[in-house]
Amino acid sequence: MNFASDNVYGVDDAILAAIGAANETLTAPAYANDDWTRRAEGMLNDVFEREVSVFLVASGTAANGLALSTMAQPFNAILCHADAHISVDECAAPEMFSGGAKLYGIDGAGNKLTAASVEAMLATFVRGEHNSKPAAVSITQATELGTVYTLDELTAITRLAHGRGLKTHMDGARFANALVSLQCTPAEMTWKAGIDALSFGATKNGALALEAVIFFDTALAEDFAYRRMRGGQLLSKGRYLGAQMAAYLKDGLWLDNARRANAHAGRLAAGLAEVPGVRVPLGADANLVFPILPRALHDQLKAAGAVYHLWPGAGPVIDTVGEDEVFARLVTSFATRDEDVDTFIAAARRNS
Amino acid sequence: MNFASDNVYGVDDAILAAIGAANETLTAPAYANDDWTRRAEGMLNDVFEREVSVFLVASGTAANGLALSTMAQPFNAILCHADAHISVDECAAPEMFSGGAKLYGIDGAGNKLTAASVEAMLATFVRGEHNSKPAAVSITQATELGTVYTLDELTAITRLAHGRGLKTHMDGARFANALVSLQCTPAEMTWKAGIDALSFGATKNGALALEAVIFFDTALAEDFAYRRMRGGQLLSKGRYLGAQMAAYLKDGLWLDNARRANAHAGRLAAGLAEVPGVRVPLGADANLVFPILPRALHDQLKAAGAVYHLWPGAGPVIDTVGEDEVFARLVTSFATRDEDVDTFIAAARRNS
Amino acid sequence: MNFASDNVYGVDDAILAAIGAANETLTAPAYANDDWTRRAEGMLNDVFEREVSVFLVASGTAANGLALSTMAQPFNAILCHADAHISVDECAAPEMFSGGAKLYGIDGAGNKLTAASVEAMLATFVRGEHNSKPAAVSITQATELGTVYTLDELTAITRLAHGRGLKTHMDGARFANALVSLQCTPAEMTWKAGIDALSFGATKNGALALEAVIFFDTALAEDFAYRRMRGGQLLSKGRYLGAQMAAYLKDGLWLDNARRANAHAGRLAAGLAEVPGVRVPLGADANLVFPILPRALHDQLKAAGAVYHLWPGAGPVIDTVGEDEVFARLVTSFATRDEDVDTFIAAARRNS
Amino acid sequence: MNFASDNVYGVDDAILAAIGAANETLTAPAYANDDWTRRAEGMLNDVFEREVSVFLVASGTAANGLALSTMAQPFNAILCHADAHISVDECAAPEMFSGGAKLYGIDGAGNKLTAASVEAMLATFVRGEHNSKPAAVSITQATELGTVYTLDELTAITRLAHGRGLKTHMDGARFANALVSLQCTPAEMTWKAGIDALSFGATKNGALALEAVIFFDTALAEDFAYRRMRGGQLLSKGRYLGAQMAAYLKDGLWLDNARRANAHAGRLAAGLAEVPGVRVPLGADANLVFPILPRALHDQLKAAGAVYHLWPGAGPVIDTVGEDEVFARLVTSFATRDEDVDTFIAAARRNS
Repeated sequence: MNFASDNVYGVDDAILAAIGAANETLTAPAYANDDWTRRAEGMLNDVFEREVSVFLVASGTAANGLALSTMAQPFNAILCHADAHISVDECAAPEMFSGGAKLYGIDGAGNKLTAASVEAMLATFVRGEHNSKPAAVSITQATELGTVYTLDELTAITRLAHGRGLKTHMDGARFANALVSLQCTPAEMTWKAGIDALSFGATKNGALALEAVIFFDTALAEDFAYRRMRGGQLLSKGRYLGAQMAAYLKDGLWLDNARRANAHAGRLAAGLAEVPGVRVPLGADANLVFPILPRALHDQLKAAGAVYHLWPGAGPVIDTVGEDEVFARLVTSFATRDEDVDTFIAAARRNS
Repeated sequence: MNFASDNVYGVDDAILAAIGAANETLTAPAYANDDWTRRAEGMLNDVFEREVSVFLVASGTAANGLALSTMAQPFNAILCHADAHISVDECAAPEMFSGGAKLYGIDGAGNKLTAASVEAMLATFVRGEHNSKPAAVSITQATELGTVYTLDELTAITRLAHGRGLKTHMDGARFANALVSLQCTPAEMTWKAGIDALSFGATKNGALALEAVIFFDTALAEDFAYRRMRGGQLLSKGRYLGAQMAAYLKDGLWLDNARRANAHAGRLAAGLAEVPGVRVPLGADANLVFPILPRALHDQLKAAGAVYHLWPGAGPVIDTVGEDEVFARLVTSFATRDEDVDTFIAAARRNS
Repeated sequence: MNFASDNVYGVDDAILAAIGAANETLTAPAYANDDWTRRAEGMLNDVFEREVSVFLVASGTAANGLALSTMAQPFNAILCHADAHISVDECAAPEMFSGGAKLYGIDGAGNKLTAASVEAMLATFVRGEHNSKPAAVSITQATELGTVYTLDELTAITRLAHGRGLKTHMDGARFANALVSLQCTPAEMTWKAGIDALSFGATKNGALALEAVIFFDTALAEDFAYRRMRGGQLLSKGRYLGAQMAAYLKDGLWLDNARRANAHAGRLAAGLAEVPGVRVPLGADANLVFPILPRALHDQLKAAGAVYHLWPGAGPVIDTVGEDEVFARLVTSFATRDEDVDTFIAAARRNS
Repeated sequence: MNFASDNVYGVDDAILAAIGAANETLTAPAYANDDWTRRAEGMLNDVFEREVSVFLVASGTAANGLALSTMAQPFNAILCHADAHISVDECAAPEMFSGGAKLYGIDGAGNKLTAASVEAMLATFVRGEHNSKPAAVSITQATELGTVYTLDELTAITRLAHGRGLKTHMDGARFANALVSLQCTPAEMTWKAGIDALSFGATKNGALALEAVIFFDTALAEDFAYRRMRGGQLLSKGRYLGAQMAAYLKDGLWLDNARRANAHAGRLAAGLAEVPGVRVPLGADANLVFPILPRALHDQLKAAGAVYHLWPGAGPVIDTVGEDEVFARLVTSFATRDEDVDTFIAAARRNS
């Protein structure tokens, strides 16, 4: 019963097999000049229904930082949710890759920005060059709290941003989970909704170590090859990134995996919501569930072998976490076992 | 006949199998907190005959930059060979990871530093704070020209460096190739020779994407976990780095692979040296051969399907490259085929 | 009636005269190697009753950023008040000078940190290397809201900080104003209260362009000469910084100037507090007054020629700013004229 | 007899008087929003015969670094002479202000670049994103060796640079000395010769602490106000920078001062060239003279009270410095005394 994170699970067999298959070719050009990478790029063009600029990397933190570095000079401000992964979970990597751009965290329920909250933050930049100059908005889809922006919500934010001269970045570490939740197309959730650059995550959804930085505003991509190299993200044996991506996209594997993970989360959320004393204040739109559990139940679940984290701070929740309660985070994966979900719900019921 | 680089070859089967085996475990703690990583660390302690601080990463460029960032503040100077990989092949990644430390390139035959050349460079820092302050020396072992420092050469440099308050870094992208060339122990070639931190490369010698930053001066490692995270090199599914490393070291696979690569290079060098009109001015200590070829022969070899690069600049060679000659670089790998070496030499003979 | 800032006023005549006097010497060693700088350093030793490390610079923003760069590596966190000058008014200069350290803003009435609020912030760093690592606390004395920390308040914060391994920085842009407000010694307000490094401001209190970075924890000063040079703050004709500082300190000029400025502010605050409809919610400990004015009165004061700024955001104030009110900031200076204070109060009374 | 540097001399009386005059106005808007700054900007428009973007700062190192930061991203290369001030005398400040751009030093007699030498350096960038991407050429006028580029030489370099997509920067720390040497207009020596941005130095030629960053390619200036603020170079009492600049330019003071300094250097060079055993291998185009002196003579001159520096390295000189010789640098200033030049030459003659 491991719900600690989606990345505690391994690699999808099909992706592992693709790595193996790529190894059967004796030699391949290094540094992303290989056929597998070309194929992956072509497939991503298809996925997004247009030509996009694609750069494969091994780390989501690097993908975010490098993407943001194309939008924000060191004297610029990047607006994001106050609890966004880029702000609180990446040890100031965006600051590193951008050379010192400053992140401005915006509060908001469910870890979501709104056009209004972004506008309110922009209104605080009244001191001219004594402040950083706003240049980018970063939106996490799905959010770190498992909520998903609707297309209208996304569009409202990006329209405001573009109207103010800001570029827009989507942290899509859980892009697939959000996508299948919205039941829209990748194009609709990105460039049609005003996104300029995307960190397209695959690792959490079945890859070994694979993210793509994808530019819809292709002018931003102009010198990105240099940025990726300088950032230590141009792997020499690039064929294994290309092969992972091709397998990830092939026959909709990525969507199937995300649907499976989301279904697990939906079942968990529904099951827990029925347990007396447990509340699930946030919708489990994607593959994360954030129940408020009685502390006693939490202890019993842990004793029963359940693995998951408590979420630091209760700020983002609409509901209040009581003194004898905990705010837990359960993450499901494509590889989460049905029986683990069942067992967890049963254990919660039994001990409630 | 692909001698373009060692990294055009794939992954050693044993390492690929280890990745597959690691995937059979359903879940593993993320972010380098897994058993495979622990095992790899233990094995590296054994390899180096002492406790060392180990951090696995996916990129050699990042390994170098992150290691150097522990030694050099932004106002510091890092001394290295003028043609060192960190200086000419990493798009200023050391500058990025260190926050702006300045590299000072030192000329020297065979891409080698000497205690004397380092001392001469240090003597140029006469302007106090108007210059950067020297803080580190980086030595590539084996060098980018395939030469290998002897233990005495290494020790002379590190002794000088330490005497002047400088830390010492070894770029060991081809560590194993140098090691089997010297027939010494890993301990002898590193901390016993005065090395404080090592970029221990595995990718070029059979891994998929794997380097280790290893600290012998463990004080340098104190906050390295933060640096690795911030640098986008803390992979979430860390078990696959750990598994690669364990397989790489197991039963001396890494040494066998390096011996095979070096033997190929030795054969190539010997074979080419006997071809009329061809000169091999540098010793092929490791797995690189740098022949001077008549241009006509070069064209014929290319036509025959040989793949290799010409080396930019003839500066580092002792010999002179004539107008009708080229300075070529041939790299061999653990996976280079015997017959490719034979065919190449035969083709050279035939066309000479 | 100019209360826009203390830096809209000019240079104290004695300081200007000292610059002129320094110019009578034909030549002086450049780059802070001159006698005036030596003298200033000696005087600062006397002021602080011990040997301190002194570095003169021309900019307060640079002083803060450079001082903080000695305490915080790029992966570190600097804790400060959410409305601290370093956080909201320096265009991310601390991030630049430190190479990317992240500022964590802490809320608190009167722009003050407390040991408790710092401790609460430290408690949020629960994610290991996924967060920045706290390394420094920066305290503004006097604060941007004109409040002044008591010695006990300072000591409580620095004791906590040191206990957690953090260094302590004081942004003393208005150091003198705070000092004469507390009626304590410079030593008591700094190193005896646990401060490791100080940005000692002189510009706002009568100098032309002069700040000193002063280290009490002199280990932090070790390579500061390099940092100052690299930061563009080592002026070639350093004698004019030294001369300014010597004149600033001589015969207590700096204290007299601060007393005069504070007295103006005190009179303003007292006078305004008696005006019907006006509230002065914060104590005017130093040379700043933050009255809440009826908007109509504000318009009339402006029409009468008063120059001052409205303060962005009412967050830090204990009191509430009504719809028809404004939150104004009045700053007094050593050179503010008595009659301007009188006229302003009279105008406020007349129009209330 | 102080020839150590131009910056060991003080402030021109007219400039000092202007600072005093600016102080007679009680208040002035802070942060470069004052009338003196406006006036200085207008005068610089006149000087350059067109509208230019002007930003006053206090430090030449900062002026260079900030100007270059508008041209070079962190992954970019800046080409300059191997012995350029920005490369060897600024403690990696350009790297700081640009966030890590890499300087590529080009050798060349008399510290001069040529179109050919720049082109040859550009030809070495053959490794795509594994190298930094060239983005800017920085030219020092007058050079650190006192030589002056002709307009044709400048134009040849900038034409090449622009043809390759590179921007051009002029380090004009001794701009006036070069200008009066060439007897051309400021426009001819800058934008008409293809310069995009200029560090316009005044400190060495009589100001207290004053440089201007001037953009001819005004697109580069777009966000420069943020860069200057973030770099700690937006002085709060900006009127004193504006006043210095206005006085510096008024009635051609800057040109007169430069002519006087150059004349001193010309006399020194001519006088020394006639001394037996002394050689002056480089033309003293500006206000620097680099004689090769017999070591015995050098000792005697020092004993006679002459102050000057030996120049590190003899590389840039066409002539060879013998074992019993020294390579000296003599710098003259607007304030150098005639009699000091006379005395020095006489002493050299007497002791030769």
